Amino acid sequence: MILVLHGPNLSQLGSRDPAVYGAATVDELVDRVRALLPGVDAFTDESEARLVARLHAARSDGTRAVIANPGALTHYSYALRDALELLAVPKVEVHLSQTHARESFRRHSVVSPVVDVTITGAGAMGYELAARAAAELLRARG
Amino acid sequence: MILVLHGPNLSQLGSRDPAVYGAATVDELVDRVRALLPGVDAFTDESEARLVARLHAARSDGTRAVIANPGALTHYSYALRDALELLAVPKVEVHLSQTHARESFRRHSVVSPVVDVTITGAGAMGYELAARAAAELLRARG
Amino acid sequence: MILVLHGPNLSQLGSRDPAVYGAATVDELVDRVRALLPGVDAFTDESEARLVARLHAARSDGTRAVIANPGALTHYSYALRDALELLAVPKVEVHLSQTHARESFRRHSVVSPVVDVTITGAGAMGYELAARAAAELLRARG
Amino acid sequence: MILVLHGPNLSQLGSRDPAVYGAATVDELVDRVRALLPGVDAFTDESEARLVARLHAARSDGTRAVIANPGALTHYSYALRDALELLAVPKVEVHLSQTHARESFRRHSVVSPVVDVTITGAGAMGYELAARAAAELLRARG
Amino acid sequence: MILVLHGPNLSQLGSRDPAVYGAATVDELVDRVRALLPGVDAFTDESEARLVARLHAARSDGTRAVIANPGALTHYSYALRDALELLAVPKVEVHLSQTHARESFRRHSVVSPVVDVTITGAGAMGYELAARAAAELLRARG
Amino acid sequence: MILVLHGPNLSQLGSRDPAVYGAATVDELVDRVRALLPGVDAFTDESEARLVARLHAARSDGTRAVIANPGALTHYSYALRDALELLAVPKVEVHLSQTHARESFRRHSVVSPVVDVTITGAGAMGYELAARAAAELLRARG
Amino acid sequence: MILVLHGPNLSQLGSRDPAVYGAATVDELVDRVRALLPGVDAFTDESEARLVARLHAARSDGTRAVIANPGALTHYSYALRDALELLAVPKVEVHLSQTHARESFRRHSVVSPVVDVTITGAGAMGYELAARAAAELLRARG
Amino acid sequence: MILVLHGPNLSQLGSRDPAVYGAATVDELVDRVRALLPGVDAFTDESEARLVARLHAARSDGTRAVIANPGALTHYSYALRDALELLAVPKVEVHLSQTHARESFRRHSVVSPVVDVTITGAGAMGYELAARAAAELLRARG
Amino acid sequence: MILVLHGPNLSQLGSRDPAVYGAATVDELVDRVRALLPGVDAFTDESEARLVARLHAARSDGTRAVIANPGALTHYSYALRDALELLAVPKVEVHLSQTHARESFRRHSVVSPVVDVTITGAGAMGYELAARAAAELLRARG
Amino acid sequence: MILVLHGPNLSQLGSRDPAVYGAATVDELVDRVRALLPGVDAFTDESEARLVARLHAARSDGTRAVIANPGALTHYSYALRDALELLAVPKVEVHLSQTHARESFRRHSVVSPVVDVTITGAGAMGYELAARAAAELLRARG
Amino acid sequence: MILVLHGPNLSQLGSRDPAVYGAATVDELVDRVRALLPGVDAFTDESEARLVARLHAARSDGTRAVIANPGALTHYSYALRDALELLAVPKVEVHLSQTHARESFRRHSVVSPVVDVTITGAGAMGYELAARAAAELLRARG
Amino acid sequence: MILVLHGPNLSQLGSRDPAVYGAATVDELVDRVRALLPGVDAFTDESEARLVARLHAARSDGTRAVIANPGALTHYSYALRDALELLAVPKVEVHLSQTHARESFRRHSVVSPVVDVTITGAGAMGYELAARAAAELLRARG
Repeated sequence: MILVLHGPNLSQLGSRDPAVYGAATVDELVDRVRALLPGVDAFTDESEARLVARLHAARSDGTRAVIANPGALTHYSYALRDALELLAVPKVEVHLSQTHARESFRRHSVVSPVVDVTITGAGAMGYELAARAAAELLRARG
Repeated sequence: MILVLHGPNLSQLGSRDPAVYGAATVDELVDRVRALLPGVDAFTDESEARLVARLHAARSDGTRAVIANPGALTHYSYALRDALELLAVPKVEVHLSQTHARESFRRHSVVSPVVDVTITGAGAMGYELAARAAAELLRARG
Repeated sequence: MILVLHGPNLSQLGSRDPAVYGAATVDELVDRVRALLPGVDAFTDESEARLVARLHAARSDGTRAVIANPGALTHYSYALRDALELLAVPKVEVHLSQTHARESFRRHSVVSPVVDVTITGAGAMGYELAARAAAELLRARG
Repeated sequence: MILVLHGPNLSQLGSRDPAVYGAATVDELVDRVRALLPGVDAFTDESEARLVARLHAARSDGTRAVIANPGALTHYSYALRDALELLAVPKVEVHLSQTHARESFRRHSVVSPVVDVTITGAGAMGYELAARAAAELLRARG
Repeated sequence: MILVLHGPNLSQLGSRDPAVYGAATVDELVDRVRALLPGVDAFTDESEARLVARLHAARSDGTRAVIANPGALTHYSYALRDALELLAVPKVEVHLSQTHARESFRRHSVVSPVVDVTITGAGAMGYELAARAAAELLRARG
Repeated sequence: MILVLHGPNLSQLGSRDPAVYGAATVDELVDRVRALLPGVDAFTDESEARLVARLHAARSDGTRAVIANPGALTHYSYALRDALELLAVPKVEVHLSQTHARESFRRHSVVSPVVDVTITGAGAMGYELAARAAAELLRARG
Repeated sequence: MILVLHGPNLSQLGSRDPAVYGAATVDELVDRVRALLPGVDAFTDESEARLVARLHAARSDGTRAVIANPGALTHYSYALRDALELLAVPKVEVHLSQTHARESFRRHSVVSPVVDVTITGAGAMGYELAARAAAELLRARG
Repeated sequence: MILVLHGPNLSQLGSRDPAVYGAATVDELVDRVRALLPGVDAFTDESEARLVARLHAARSDGTRAVIANPGALTHYSYALRDALELLAVPKVEVHLSQTHARESFRRHSVVSPVVDVTITGAGAMGYELAARAAAELLRARG
Repeated sequence: MILVLHGPNLSQLGSRDPAVYGAATVDELVDRVRALLPGVDAFTDESEARLVARLHAARSDGTRAVIANPGALTHYSYALRDALELLAVPKVEVHLSQTHARESFRRHSVVSPVVDVTITGAGAMGYELAARAAAELLRARG
Repeated sequence: MILVLHGPNLSQLGSRDPAVYGAATVDELVDRVRALLPGVDAFTDESEARLVARLHAARSDGTRAVIANPGALTHYSYALRDALELLAVPKVEVHLSQTHARESFRRHSVVSPVVDVTITGAGAMGYELAARAAAELLRARG
Repeated sequence: MILVLHGPNLSQLGSRDPAVYGAATVDELVDRVRALLPGVDAFTDESEARLVARLHAARSDGTRAVIANPGALTHYSYALRDALELLAVPKVEVHLSQTHARESFRRHSVVSPVVDVTITGAGAMGYELAARAAAELLRARG
Repeated sequence: MILVLHGPNLSQLGSRDPAVYGAATVDELVDRVRALLPGVDAFTDESEARLVARLHAARSDGTRAVIANPGALTHYSYALRDALELLAVPKVEVHLSQTHARESFRRHSVVSPVVDVTITGAGAMGYELAARAAAELLRARG
């Protein structure tokens, strides 16, 4: 199974500042991954706790890789960081916008040091890239 | 034409710390892009000045997108940043290693704010992802 | 509808350090707003996630303004900030105590840059001021 | 008596960047206070020294509360801060614009720690809120 | 009653990096406390909000002391800090690993200034020490 | 009219550390401007308040450009900065010494971001340069 | 002549927080100096500009030494610093309270680097010490 | 042998600010350890050098564990840190007061990264906890 | 001879963001200098090394003054700084845009402390000002 | 008894950089104090430990005041600070040179916040001033 | 072969500020090495790129050790750092002047962490020391 | 006489982490110096005070040069720095390990700015280099 995780405010995609985030909804983003990978399980939640719990569950439910867009939790949730670090599968972090060109607090990700790959600024296509990265990481670890 | 730019020390790939950078040479990385995009022109150089000049040339030689791995210049070359900013085509920054999990000076890119997409940690496959990102950006700008 | 939002620990008002926070309960604070504005809906929660979700709901339930006291989330919850920024109605931030005269971490609000008005130190009356501010912002936007 | 104090550049209100500061003049702002409180004395001056001296006079001329918009002195005048601290009556700080959403130097007020209430971003109405806050502080101190 | 609180990711103890955190599960850690103190109530949760709420409940349910390991929330949850500060009983903070010898973000605890005792690096035995500390603090306060 | 503004301590030029500031008096500096531009009005004052007021007057007295050497106010007077920003004519900042090669506090100007041109280190001739810059800015704005 | 200079808010001594500043008025402080030195001229003013101008006058009116308590200007007035630096006579800085044990902004004096002697925390007696220091500096310079 | 080390000023315990440090003397604190562990050797000294030398001696005199309260040296003595690091036995750092709730310089320990366990705020009982921690560390290393 | 030096990306002037940099080409900028000074030698290069070498050559080729716009090297090239410092002729630094009003990294020049005069924000005319400054510096040094 | 304490390197006075420290020896400095106060005991030592121990002894040997020049320990010895703080008599800190005008590390004293009076820059006479300050503090505490 | 590398501006030695750098030319410095080691190859260049390339060549041309004085690149060239790190032979960094006693930017070397030995302040003799260090490192690695 | 000074913990060399510090004892290190220079006096001590006193003695006992490895005092002992500065003979600082590649606190030496030469990372051979440097400095000063 491939877990696709979305954090706070991403449920609002489609109607949230399309100039920055694009017009795609979370479902459409997940579909991008589904088109490339089998067995995708999407989990979108505003709650740090439920995201953490979902990652814990992933330790024993056959999850083989994670694609995560933690939303604003990216910048301060060491709890999420620890949960990701605990999970021994390939992990890809993805952000729709080019976070490096926005407010200064968005330039720092507490999550990046514990994931394998980070992709920023590619919009909806970023999920396709993330899916391919996950596939490749899985293949490499054989 | 798609310009694939490599900065200082990347010429040494293949024999440079394979645990961090993988076993692929620059030519093999460029081949990853070539497999996906037509008209690839590779430019690998240790010199900030020649990289800047190559980007200037790209303003009038039909270059339609840039995929750049500036090596260590990523962390301090505002000259390279300005040259990238000057160029009005889609730009993708790619790093083989997960720069966010290494020395602290590698966490800061002066280039990221002026490129469209940044990809770190995906190894050789990162070039494939970059090629797909460039293709999509070109399609979107139609 | 006017949404009055309270974050973590504010449920304990009335019995929390009265020298700093005063003797009023959350209900009494909301009543201050109700005395001045019709259609007040109060939402008090310890959970960042439920506060974020409530703000999302406000995007389509006829909410015309928000009065928010995010408690300690004020100082680090970029998730709450993003949820407030997403909502296109007048927004007023209110704190009972003069946060600027307390511990240094309380001087910085990640929420202030995305709300219209900030009021600190006015105690229970701050809610009355917030209500009047919200009313005026609504009138101004016609 | 209620002292309404304005610092440097506020004399230019009405013609100063209306998108940020609104169209009201200082007189109109003071009138907002007068409509709610009796015995208002307005003092507008570009001079830190005269503002300080006016606050000293207020120690013995029956001044019962102060509403102050110190303009740019807010960000560096420890002299004004000391003068405010010296005065044992209720004090309300008010700023027309949302200072927290502007240049970074405007986010820091050296005055806030010594006043009772701070109100930012409410425009001309902020003075009405300040007047109500002053009235309430006076009532509470009986 | 003695409340033993565990924050995010601690539910995974036993299987989480044993070199750092040891082999004991949360239940075994709580048993260490139970062996020394009567009336222990254990509460383990990934959610900041539920941890805060549990501390609020402790204000009126006869809780006489708290032993808390807030996990990664230690480093940023001012909400948890405020909830602990609100509670007027002896409080002991405990961390399994020597947080001072790990990543720099783990060196800073926003919780330490509001608890009576902090114990780091003692592994599972730290809970025994915490239990003894709580017992002594209770005795001292009579 | 062209307003030439001098801030604190510049009245002492001629007798102030000639190795740093040169031997010219303020009058001689203004004469440099007069030799190049008609209708020069010189205003030299130790007072931040009077400098601010003079700039306000310049909004309606036909002033077409400002050449300002704010002396030490350069480094902290946000009031002066705001007054300059308010004035919609060409503005040139000039310093006799090379401020960048002196004490570190002199390297930062709070005024530079709101003026058109800054000239440092050119000594008395800097006023001639400033006059030419003002003339050119006027021509360009036609 | 010996110039004794007092900056903002010191006119209020006697009635300003006696626990910190003592019960002596400015006149009484100056009398301490007068008891030890002939030809004392006292200048007390809230205005940075007038203090600066007074120091300029001191360059040619026979002033032989300066004793200065610049009040809050101590912490930010580079204009005052420059005026003091310009004056080639012995200079003593004196503060009634132990500034190093108060708010952090009071620990930094921009004036200290350009005066000969600094005395803090000695209360009214500090002026006597300052007078003696000035006398000695005069003697030493013969 | 168990070495109990006390640094500067701890010799004064009993008569030093009892509200912060309690009424116990160093001897009484050491007795707490003696009650739990055999073969305790106490060493109390104001001298960094003698503390360092004592730790060197401990490398070959059969010392099996160290309990250290380095006093103010905690905050800057890298020499003590190196001496502790050199010693390959279990090491416990203990402070009577909750250092994290006091002056900011007390929040940083240069010693913590090289000891196994740190205990703060437990008063005299902290030594009992330290003794138990040492015992357990010895058992674990068998 | 007067050396006019241009660093990276300035070769692109004319077609680079005219709103910021104006419409003039490097040749046109140099012509401004030529109109005022005889014997101008222009050197424009993307390479830090060649700029450094050109400055070395200037030590013995009769160069009497330097006008330099180092482009982005301004912000980090200590090599260029050293080369300028080595050269004992009058040196003028010039930037087309008002660097102080742009991105924060552009506010810091490592070159300013070793040149005589710095001019920012004057556009193409800045070169005319620089030429006059160079002429005057030459005259003053006789 | 009045204790006059000198820290490291002050034993070398007389032969240490007379331009900075003057020509007086420690004995001559102490004589300055002796001329004004009865019962002076001088203690000069390079050792932080012995200085601390001497201050401890002063708690019960009838010492009525301390005049201390801690030398370079001023800038980092929290042990000395604690020893001074422990001692409940008047304390005066004195430095021969104007520490605020030298290397930046000399601007910060960890001792100042716990002494009553600080005197810098007065040279040998500073000891006379310190003696008078001590006398006055003793009289005031009567 | 032993590679002796010199970076920007070192070609000017002999005529560059002899008080700081001494009178020796680069050739004379290299001769110092030659006198002690056989097979010395000197490479002096202003160009970061050519220095990097030379180091790459050294990976396969039999270079057995490197002695490098990178000039001002020392302080910012991460490209040079990476090139040095790539090369698996003994590496010695040498600076003529005592960089730690000069401008603050010269105190930080980005190269030091990847070389074996660093020698500063020894002037021309530093090269002799570097040669001996290289010889010893070669012997030790056998 | 040549003084070879060793600070805290260096007495333990030989048995201290040989991977970092090598297998040589202090005596063997001093022997390296003795092999090259006549009249070596070795002084090894844990005490800052005794090291300072030894340096004072060196002012009049015929000491002609100092080779110092201050151990951890390097990073904070301004007392040692002052003692070294006082001594007008050639001074060489030496560290066995490459301090620049270790913990961040080891990168900063408060001693380097007052010594002539600094050598790091050369292991035992560093003493040989230091001896040669001292010899050369003596020769140069004649």
